[in-house]
Amino acid sequence: MRVGILGGGQLGWMTILEGRKLGFEFFVADDMPHSPARKVADLCFDYSEIDEFVKLCDVITYEFEHIPEEILEKTAPLTFPSVEILKLKKSKVEEKLFLKKRGYPVPTFTVAFKEDLEQKVGLLNLPVVVKAEALGYDGKGQYLIKSLQDLQKVKANHGEKERFLVEEFVDFDFELSIIGVRSLRGEVRLYPPTINYHREGILFYNHTTSMVFPEGEEIVRSLMEELNLVGVLCVEFFYTKKGKLLINEMAPRVHNTGHHTLDSAYTSQFENLLRAITGLPLGSTKLKSHAGMLNLLGVSYEEIDWKKVLSVEGTKLYWYGKEKKHRRKMGHINLVASTEEEVVEKLNQLYDMIYEPIKC
Amino acid sequence: MRVGILGGGQLGWMTILEGRKLGFEFFVADDMPHSPARKVADLCFDYSEIDEFVKLCDVITYEFEHIPEEILEKTAPLTFPSVEILKLKKSKVEEKLFLKKRGYPVPTFTVAFKEDLEQKVGLLNLPVVVKAEALGYDGKGQYLIKSLQDLQKVKANHGEKERFLVEEFVDFDFELSIIGVRSLRGEVRLYPPTINYHREGILFYNHTTSMVFPEGEEIVRSLMEELNLVGVLCVEFFYTKKGKLLINEMAPRVHNTGHHTLDSAYTSQFENLLRAITGLPLGSTKLKSHAGMLNLLGVSYEEIDWKKVLSVEGTKLYWYGKEKKHRRKMGHINLVASTEEEVVEKLNQLYDMIYEPIKC
Repeated sequence: MRVGILGGGQLGWMTILEGRKLGFEFFVADDMPHSPARKVADLCFDYSEIDEFVKLCDVITYEFEHIPEEILEKTAPLTFPSVEILKLKKSKVEEKLFLKKRGYPVPTFTVAFKEDLEQKVGLLNLPVVVKAEALGYDGKGQYLIKSLQDLQKVKANHGEKERFLVEEFVDFDFELSIIGVRSLRGEVRLYPPTINYHREGILFYNHTTSMVFPEGEEIVRSLMEELNLVGVLCVEFFYTKKGKLLINEMAPRVHNTGHHTLDSAYTSQFENLLRAITGLPLGSTKLKSHAGMLNLLGVSYEEIDWKKVLSVEGTKLYWYGKEKKHRRKMGHINLVASTEEEVVEKLNQLYDMIYEPIKC
Repeated sequence: MRVGILGGGQLGWMTILEGRKLGFEFFVADDMPHSPARKVADLCFDYSEIDEFVKLCDVITYEFEHIPEEILEKTAPLTFPSVEILKLKKSKVEEKLFLKKRGYPVPTFTVAFKEDLEQKVGLLNLPVVVKAEALGYDGKGQYLIKSLQDLQKVKANHGEKERFLVEEFVDFDFELSIIGVRSLRGEVRLYPPTINYHREGILFYNHTTSMVFPEGEEIVRSLMEELNLVGVLCVEFFYTKKGKLLINEMAPRVHNTGHHTLDSAYTSQFENLLRAITGLPLGSTKLKSHAGMLNLLGVSYEEIDWKKVLSVEGTKLYWYGKEKKHRRKMGHINLVASTEEEVVEKLNQLYDMIYEPIKC
């Protein structure tokens, strides 16, 4: 089976490492000559060579959302999840309108242009969150508005024609996500939920939990059916202080909050994506152990005391080999342990070991 | 860290797939242009380019025993486990003499040349096993001698100067192996034992067990110390009908009976080999689940009903992408499950699914 991946980041890299085991071949198309997935692909293509790429592939998937329209047009017939789902996801505004229209629980929101931002923000109670329609990736283009004055920054950064999602600030107890997978044959499996912790809009760490969220599971299942999604869907939720689940966002691809499945689950999210889009039966999503994940953000390999870090029982390193940038996801550590408490304790230990010395 | 691997087979392939996660680079040297490890290596070298290979590597290991002497001479200073250990292992005769001299429990044996084979065989009770000194790989060069007439085949296949190990036929209850890992820093860990089933001298399937063999563990630990071994050592034992452990053979490398660790252990044998030889702390060898492994021998990808096979909960496919040959190891299936009984039951199911249709 010849699998094409649009995007060459770490999600593609892990998909290929997992898919090698199945005997598949992998082709990567992206616009970054040194991306991680390129290092493990059979062949790599620039976007200018997309026709050749498509000709070689039996099936295509994507590992991030920001793929040019003209590329998607060419890959669409072979692409899973469908390009329509990706387009929906690419607009923060359309995504929320879709969810609301279909009756899914979402935070209160309204849609604004630059010119009526003040007015629309005025409809909600401060603070609110303003999100640019197209730029929601890792918290970029997202603004916490505590007073109307904070809108100056939004206005300075964006053009007249852009739309914004203006959303109530949800006073949540915690954030969680549930990852589902649905195959060409309509088979569906869900991974157990994880509790997620973000920092400045970027996932920082997460862990599995023994809590169950039947309503959340039903939402993921129902969304996959309604979207006729083939592949992986991650839905991120707020769990409010009043005990209500609200959808924060969704991603029709393997997700950072599912990295732990590489070491904790019977079948990883990456393998299940590949099984789903190639007509194979889905693998079990049961967990073999409790697990957690800590992102390595904006750090270099040399800054970390690996002897100390890898001495912590149950740690598994994934280093993506990317050029260091501020806040960039450089790698992650998966952690497996026999109890949820042990996972949380060790994540804290690892945090201290890694980030304390570099004061990050 | 730049790691060189001598040999390009599936053991190297899995070592590289695991080691990618640690951010290491991999170079492969072998004499097979289409070997599995070459497909996932950063750079590949023929034996004629061994000087360039050595220059690039920080550390070197090997994934099979049959590496030419002149190659080992050049790689020796960087090679772990040491080339001396590999040489010992390469001779069935020297291996057994070493073990006996050091007081390890081995089957009764004697050493013969072609000319005194009858006489030496006569010293033991029939049946005996005759093994050519140099060719013990996957049962090649190994003969079960039930009557003196069976020696004709041995004589026809081998030259005058070859030595043979002549060994009592051990009436065993079962076979087991224990894999140990020892690091540059002298840290030692052992994986739990597995029960192994061979067919015509080739490992067919194996599974973890709740039985414990403290004497076997002590042997592996002691052997690693005595050999000053840095890396992985697998010791295969017979468990005799009288309840005694006898060493069948050892291998100073990652081993087929440890493939299950990719999916069952906190740290796989492959990652622990890399940790051991690069000065990193060893990872935990604890298991997250019960597990088994079924080798895919002499089958082609197309012959197997993957939809059926991969529907069995807990299966993980590893397909090496090699050219099909009779009895060749083409891939394996790892299986994880919550109990030992479930593992054994599912291995039987998988056996029927895979081998029944092709009458193999």
